[in-house]
Amino acid sequence: MIGVARTPYSQTKEIPKGLGAKHDAMGTLEILPEFETGLTDIEGFSHLFVLWVFDRSEGFELFGTVPIDGQPHGVFATRSPRRPNPIGLTVVELLRREGRMLHVRGVDMLDATPILDLKPYLSSIPAEKLRRGWIAGAEMRATK
Amino acid sequence: MIGVARTPYSQTKEIPKGLGAKHDAMGTLEILPEFETGLTDIEGFSHLFVLWVFDRSEGFELFGTVPIDGQPHGVFATRSPRRPNPIGLTVVELLRREGRMLHVRGVDMLDATPILDLKPYLSSIPAEKLRRGWIAGAEMRATK
Repeated sequence: MIGVARTPYSQTKEIPKGLGAKHDAMGTLEILPEFETGLTDIEGFSHLFVLWVFDRSEGFELFGTVPIDGQPHGVFATRSPRRPNPIGLTVVELLRREGRMLHVRGVDMLDATPILDLKPYLSSIPAEKLRRGWIAGAEMRATK
Repeated sequence: MIGVARTPYSQTKEIPKGLGAKHDAMGTLEILPEFETGLTDIEGFSHLFVLWVFDRSEGFELFGTVPIDGQPHGVFATRSPRRPNPIGLTVVELLRREGRMLHVRGVDMLDATPILDLKPYLSSIPAEKLRRGWIAGAEMRATK
């Protein structure tokens, strides 16, 4: 790991989930001193990919239900923590860097989560080209 | 690993790099039979995140140059393969699923690269909210 995430969440149930969940919680990515040099120039990017470990998740389930709807889905069609390789991926907004501390908005992992990697977010898929599978259906059912 | 990527690239130098590089190469994500159930419903998504291993990269460099420009940058401000945790992240377009084979566009990894995880791509950061750090400067210099 290259550091840990400091977030407001000490328990999974506190993390907003499901349709319309807002992920605008503030947090800090605390990078270990020996990796600080690797942060050079990162402050120029508005958004970062954070790769991290679901370190408090156990085992995996290839087909199961998630909080968003009551239907089971394949794990690779969800963001479930119970994955064969329990790696999480979050896009955060980088607000400010102070040395090896990155102050960010949009954390959705537990406090003290180990961080594996950071990458700059460079481009987006335009909304009109995105199809969001079962999520779109679940949203429609929820707003009926 | 949950599978391997089949791509047109047997050597790193064949992969398009640098400013304006197009990543529209076709490839196949071959998921191992024991994980096929986890793909259920994945065909509804137009784009996927692929997490994979830079398995032919050795060691890491916290501050170094990348093909895009001649300036050195911190590794976490680049997509360099020589990272502390050599995990790659690629957004691909899912064209078609045949059983445990996902036919995709946009591969940029070497052939036979181990895949760690797949996740649905659900939303984008709007272009007007993105700042792309040193990349934007390198692009301006390149087009002068």
